[in-house]
Amino acid sequence: MKRFAKLFSRRIGVAPGSIVDEPRATGQPVEMTLFRYNADFIEEQKIPAEDSLEDLTKDGRILWLDIPGVHDSGLLKSITRRFGIHPIAAENIQHTGQRPKADEYGDQLFLLLHMLTWNMEEKTVETEQVSIISGRDYVLSFQEHPGDVFDPVRRRLTEGLGRVRKMNADYLAYCLADAVVDNYFLVLEDLREEFEEMEEQVLFEDGPDPSARVHALTRELLSLRRAVWPMREAASALMRGQIPSVSEEVQIFFRDLHDHIVQIIDWIELMRDSMKGLMDSYQSKVSNSTNSIMRVLTIVATIFIPLTYIAGIYGMNFEIMPELSWPLGYPAIMGVMALVAVGMLLYFKKKKWL
Amino acid sequence: MKRFAKLFSRRIGVAPGSIVDEPRATGQPVEMTLFRYNADFIEEQKIPAEDSLEDLTKDGRILWLDIPGVHDSGLLKSITRRFGIHPIAAENIQHTGQRPKADEYGDQLFLLLHMLTWNMEEKTVETEQVSIISGRDYVLSFQEHPGDVFDPVRRRLTEGLGRVRKMNADYLAYCLADAVVDNYFLVLEDLREEFEEMEEQVLFEDGPDPSARVHALTRELLSLRRAVWPMREAASALMRGQIPSVSEEVQIFFRDLHDHIVQIIDWIELMRDSMKGLMDSYQSKVSNSTNSIMRVLTIVATIFIPLTYIAGIYGMNFEIMPELSWPLGYPAIMGVMALVAVGMLLYFKKKKWL
Amino acid sequence: MKRFAKLFSRRIGVAPGSIVDEPRATGQPVEMTLFRYNADFIEEQKIPAEDSLEDLTKDGRILWLDIPGVHDSGLLKSITRRFGIHPIAAENIQHTGQRPKADEYGDQLFLLLHMLTWNMEEKTVETEQVSIISGRDYVLSFQEHPGDVFDPVRRRLTEGLGRVRKMNADYLAYCLADAVVDNYFLVLEDLREEFEEMEEQVLFEDGPDPSARVHALTRELLSLRRAVWPMREAASALMRGQIPSVSEEVQIFFRDLHDHIVQIIDWIELMRDSMKGLMDSYQSKVSNSTNSIMRVLTIVATIFIPLTYIAGIYGMNFEIMPELSWPLGYPAIMGVMALVAVGMLLYFKKKKWL
Amino acid sequence: MKRFAKLFSRRIGVAPGSIVDEPRATGQPVEMTLFRYNADFIEEQKIPAEDSLEDLTKDGRILWLDIPGVHDSGLLKSITRRFGIHPIAAENIQHTGQRPKADEYGDQLFLLLHMLTWNMEEKTVETEQVSIISGRDYVLSFQEHPGDVFDPVRRRLTEGLGRVRKMNADYLAYCLADAVVDNYFLVLEDLREEFEEMEEQVLFEDGPDPSARVHALTRELLSLRRAVWPMREAASALMRGQIPSVSEEVQIFFRDLHDHIVQIIDWIELMRDSMKGLMDSYQSKVSNSTNSIMRVLTIVATIFIPLTYIAGIYGMNFEIMPELSWPLGYPAIMGVMALVAVGMLLYFKKKKWL
Amino acid sequence: MKRFAKLFSRRIGVAPGSIVDEPRATGQPVEMTLFRYNADFIEEQKIPAEDSLEDLTKDGRILWLDIPGVHDSGLLKSITRRFGIHPIAAENIQHTGQRPKADEYGDQLFLLLHMLTWNMEEKTVETEQVSIISGRDYVLSFQEHPGDVFDPVRRRLTEGLGRVRKMNADYLAYCLADAVVDNYFLVLEDLREEFEEMEEQVLFEDGPDPSARVHALTRELLSLRRAVWPMREAASALMRGQIPSVSEEVQIFFRDLHDHIVQIIDWIELMRDSMKGLMDSYQSKVSNSTNSIMRVLTIVATIFIPLTYIAGIYGMNFEIMPELSWPLGYPAIMGVMALVAVGMLLYFKKKKWL
Repeated sequence: MKRFAKLFSRRIGVAPGSIVDEPRATGQPVEMTLFRYNADFIEEQKIPAEDSLEDLTKDGRILWLDIPGVHDSGLLKSITRRFGIHPIAAENIQHTGQRPKADEYGDQLFLLLHMLTWNMEEKTVETEQVSIISGRDYVLSFQEHPGDVFDPVRRRLTEGLGRVRKMNADYLAYCLADAVVDNYFLVLEDLREEFEEMEEQVLFEDGPDPSARVHALTRELLSLRRAVWPMREAASALMRGQIPSVSEEVQIFFRDLHDHIVQIIDWIELMRDSMKGLMDSYQSKVSNSTNSIMRVLTIVATIFIPLTYIAGIYGMNFEIMPELSWPLGYPAIMGVMALVAVGMLLYFKKKKWL
Repeated sequence: MKRFAKLFSRRIGVAPGSIVDEPRATGQPVEMTLFRYNADFIEEQKIPAEDSLEDLTKDGRILWLDIPGVHDSGLLKSITRRFGIHPIAAENIQHTGQRPKADEYGDQLFLLLHMLTWNMEEKTVETEQVSIISGRDYVLSFQEHPGDVFDPVRRRLTEGLGRVRKMNADYLAYCLADAVVDNYFLVLEDLREEFEEMEEQVLFEDGPDPSARVHALTRELLSLRRAVWPMREAASALMRGQIPSVSEEVQIFFRDLHDHIVQIIDWIELMRDSMKGLMDSYQSKVSNSTNSIMRVLTIVATIFIPLTYIAGIYGMNFEIMPELSWPLGYPAIMGVMALVAVGMLLYFKKKKWL
Repeated sequence: MKRFAKLFSRRIGVAPGSIVDEPRATGQPVEMTLFRYNADFIEEQKIPAEDSLEDLTKDGRILWLDIPGVHDSGLLKSITRRFGIHPIAAENIQHTGQRPKADEYGDQLFLLLHMLTWNMEEKTVETEQVSIISGRDYVLSFQEHPGDVFDPVRRRLTEGLGRVRKMNADYLAYCLADAVVDNYFLVLEDLREEFEEMEEQVLFEDGPDPSARVHALTRELLSLRRAVWPMREAASALMRGQIPSVSEEVQIFFRDLHDHIVQIIDWIELMRDSMKGLMDSYQSKVSNSTNSIMRVLTIVATIFIPLTYIAGIYGMNFEIMPELSWPLGYPAIMGVMALVAVGMLLYFKKKKWL
Repeated sequence: MKRFAKLFSRRIGVAPGSIVDEPRATGQPVEMTLFRYNADFIEEQKIPAEDSLEDLTKDGRILWLDIPGVHDSGLLKSITRRFGIHPIAAENIQHTGQRPKADEYGDQLFLLLHMLTWNMEEKTVETEQVSIISGRDYVLSFQEHPGDVFDPVRRRLTEGLGRVRKMNADYLAYCLADAVVDNYFLVLEDLREEFEEMEEQVLFEDGPDPSARVHALTRELLSLRRAVWPMREAASALMRGQIPSVSEEVQIFFRDLHDHIVQIIDWIELMRDSMKGLMDSYQSKVSNSTNSIMRVLTIVATIFIPLTYIAGIYGMNFEIMPELSWPLGYPAIMGVMALVAVGMLLYFKKKKWL
Repeated sequence: MKRFAKLFSRRIGVAPGSIVDEPRATGQPVEMTLFRYNADFIEEQKIPAEDSLEDLTKDGRILWLDIPGVHDSGLLKSITRRFGIHPIAAENIQHTGQRPKADEYGDQLFLLLHMLTWNMEEKTVETEQVSIISGRDYVLSFQEHPGDVFDPVRRRLTEGLGRVRKMNADYLAYCLADAVVDNYFLVLEDLREEFEEMEEQVLFEDGPDPSARVHALTRELLSLRRAVWPMREAASALMRGQIPSVSEEVQIFFRDLHDHIVQIIDWIELMRDSMKGLMDSYQSKVSNSTNSIMRVLTIVATIFIPLTYIAGIYGMNFEIMPELSWPLGYPAIMGVMALVAVGMLLYFKKKKWL
């Protein structure tokens, strides 16, 4: 929950729908990438943050402008102005940490997604907010940092694979969202492997108490869940045509996306159940082991305590204890003790405690 | 969860709605079966994968083409082209492991179902994806492997039983879905028998800890649940006429299918409850047994510990211990001990601990 | 769950909507009862299964044909033909064990209900499927066995009580459903008495572990729940006029039926909560008792173990142990023991463990 | 659950919508109260049950007839006839113990409410059914017994406070319902005080096991919940204008009533949570105390058992035990014992068990 | 729950929709603040409670009248009259402790919110009801006490920041609601810090039983939840245009508010889960520690009890015990004891109990 606090405290008291000026030059300068394409033509171009966006010509082509950084408030403002982005959308783009959603502002589709990556070393799911704005003939994608999951889309664009070059901007927006969701499967797979390794250890190798690891893994799973769950609703709105800027043709693709999201949710729930099951198994194992120990103590103690008492009696120093001088006193009492012990063992046997 | 990972990692990064070329010739060649029928006529034909499908004539009859294998991407592509299957549907057919659903693409009804079989030896439920596409006068059924649950439908077709020969393609699609769902009852019955055997052992035969078996059975039950649950929604859409390519006459049959699905869900929930109840019973049994043992130890120890202490006193070697030389010292102290023991027993009796 | 398996395995592979021929003559022959009435007239008639139904005349009267048995497939077929029953409805009538529902086939209202009776001796709820078909001027009621809960309706019909004679067939269908639901209250009352008797025993009479009985009672309650729960939806559809063959006048009566069903569901939930509460009480009682025993052991042991050790010391046989020859050694050591004991008791008292 | 059984068993088998004749003269005769008012005029009148209601004139005024008793079936029948009450409504009025609801019969609004009172002595919530029927210019209120929560309404009527005299009959019906709901707050307050007293005892005064009291209080809270929960739906229907006989002006008041009901439900849920929390606190307290005792026993036993064993060794009577004749044997062995004891204490300290 | 009782008991029996006269002069006199503004002009003015509000001129400007106190019933009445506030709204304003909601009365939007502040010292969330009424060109805000969270709005108004001066009264109402919700993030942040401090202590510093603190924190979290949860519904109604007095332009802002509320709810749920997890961790830690102690006792006791018994045997005083006079009797028996001990240790090792 660490980043959450900072994100929001910064925004408190600011007029809704405003881009906050960042005084410090945070991080490296943002280098945007522009794709300009139609069915027959494609051109890729790097655009530094300082360049003016005013003279972006389209020539009947579709533009995809990828902005890998939202910390440059000056750049954000100029893009907002150039493409007529609604202030609330702009605010959501800058103040990352928002809930995933699909909204419409005028004729622009606004998609806010969480791009997840599995950090192998720290075994955590890292979240990065991706905002996608799709207009009539352009798509803007805003990321927090350089590095993303869109390479397959880029390859399909440049190599002209699939139908992406032949379709409109809304299909490109779908492709980006689809790439983000596809990546969830990889994250889920990493989580699953982590889980199965743990399961192996707990069930077959007498590993240590897994609660801390299960706890940590659950937290990561919840990150995934928090990214996916709100998208269900969003994808449902998109597939049902509630957002008119998505064409009917692309709605079918969003229906497929919706199916994937629902499937991910199913797997998440299944994995939560499995983790709960693993914890139950571990606890039942621990409790069985404790029970066995207690049972042994109980039986040992229950048998020997009376015997020790008998021995104690004949350890008393009374001057007149007739049994002590009987020639067969010692073997007799040993026999009595043996009888007591065997009797108790039989009783335990009968009760199925042994 | 093993197959899930592979299925999806293969697809990541591929353009949505495309059939992936499989480089290796996986498994045996696919041999399709074609039924061509109307009320008066029926013909069955085996079609090897190499045959061209372009010259499939219909002559006013209904075609049912059954394709028992989706690993031949060339075949899939030619079928897709021949019958105008939507790319998203085709992708769902090839990349098995999808969620069950009922969709409509143009005038085609697309049903995706999980065909379940109970593997007697490994005591697992095996899942196979069946995709059914039904157009105006043809039905296509795609399976992962040869071998299915459609034999009763085939028999009714060839022998002209029931109304299948007299009705349209949508009714045949219903019949196939119905055969899949009917089979769930058999799987459920197998799970039930497995459960009852286990119940018998746990409750009456002092069997071992059933948690592992209950755990395994729950997992199989969840497979069934995962197959059935999404179908409820699908069947509900079909019975309410939300998919126009299903005629009103057939909607009534889908309503019956919906009732069956709901009933299966009811039974699944009931069985989950029963398994939970069984676990509770087992744990309560174990805990009762542990309690009884503890109780015995407690009572034995509580009685003998003070007695042993008394014996210990008279085992001390002090030179001056007047009791030791009393003629009746020994019987007196034995009497005292007896009194203590009886007193404690009475106390326990009064407290209802015995 | 025993009957469930057989019921459905019989049906698997059969064409949907077909009546299965029963080769054996199962049980006794079915004797139907026919009521023919209007506001001024009523006539009751026994009709053997062999009789032809073709010449059933109505003469502007309403018919109620009660068929107390569905095992005679020939009879079922002839009724189906005579009254134009939809094949799916016919199948549901024959293959009992269906989920309760209210459907419409053409202008026929089809009600499927579970008639419950409380078996005093085995303390189980017995379920019998009742199917009611109501057309414009006739009502058919199918039961599994002779013997039912419709006697009050018959009395009102023959004696002309209430408004049943003056109204249409849909009202008679309502009356039959109402009689079935009314009977649920009696079953619920039986279950409640059973529960209260058990509660009495557990809470005030130190009865034995009630889990088995609670388990059994819960199972019976779930039978009731399974009968009632789906009827809520059905009654809701009926009262809202979603089934046009029910007149507006009768919808108000179905609203009342709906209220009764909801009330039964409320009571069932309340009783489940109460049973859970009873189990909690019992477990808390058992655990309190175990705790008390453990506490006594703990205190006894904690006091006597050190004392026994002290006694043990002076039971050692060292040649030089000065205390042993002190004249007041024995009383002194007894005093030390008393001090230790009293000190521990005071400590326990202070800690509120006594 | 005691009254429930009798109420319903009486009704079983009776024609739906009929008033059952009560053979015995139950309780005292019913004395009705009639208010006749408009904005400028008000008149209060006592009407014995025997009086004819046929000549009740209205003269353009609104009538409020309060009937504090539903056991007089003759009276009920005459009122039913006089005001044209629907038979189902009449049946609901007579057979108390119904679920709260708001229905419409023709142009009559029918409200069925539970009036609750807190019985100080038995610490139970007592439930009385109040049925309100409101027509165009009259309101009928049926209660089970004399004595109610309507005095504030009566005072406002007679003194002309608020807007009740200036508005229509539906507003008076609202006022009665509002008085019933207002009283829930008082009952809730009583329950809260009861709870806080208990909480005080458990948390700070080492009171006894509160489960029985919590159990009892939960039961009373559930009575309240059962009265309120169905009213939420009813009030929601009333505020949304689903019942046309409620004017738009009064709908706003029912919206306020709905808010109150939702608030009561919130408080009930909060109180249930608090009670659960109290039980958790108590159990954690008990379990902590048991743990402390066990810990003391464990440490005492673990230290003294080995020491006792050592003492036991030197209490053996072997003829040749060299240590026994060593001059420093006794102090040496005492030193060994001290070392063992100190070593164990240090070990426990290190493990943080002390 | 303390304030709840008083608030409502005061209202019981009063006519719905009436302002109750408060006999005592409660607290200090209320000093209102008036903002009068349009895009070009702004004026701030303090108005004592005694001033007449009748001559409040608007001159085409928007008024914001902030009333920091609802205990002055005279003032409330005069405002109600001046601005035509619906009696039910007025009652809700005066009787604080209502559920948050968004209603519409005629052309007035009525927002009822809970303003929360975190009391650092008592570590509690303090709740204050804020009622906002927005008409065509005025906004009224009622608070319980002076001091609020509206300073950022005031600053934006006076300094002309953002778009508040250029828009209508409904946007100002939104700004006030937004300021209230923004503040929830701060409260949530305070709760989070409190939680993380506690977590640190429990997990890494062997802190004391955290249940009391977790209990207290949960209670505060529930306060927040109770404030936020009903607002979800309210914001949802506002964003969907169900309340016509909110312009379409401002609906988009309420959609953003809705997103914030949903996000807060998500965080609350996450924090509840985390607290549950912390309690689980603590209990598992405690139970592990207890288990370790028990295990040590068990092993020590199980080993020494038989040994002590053996020593007891040879402490018996029988005259004829041949072993006692064997020259190697003592070392032999010591060897036997060592064998027994080692054997048990090996057994425990094999069983993995050590």
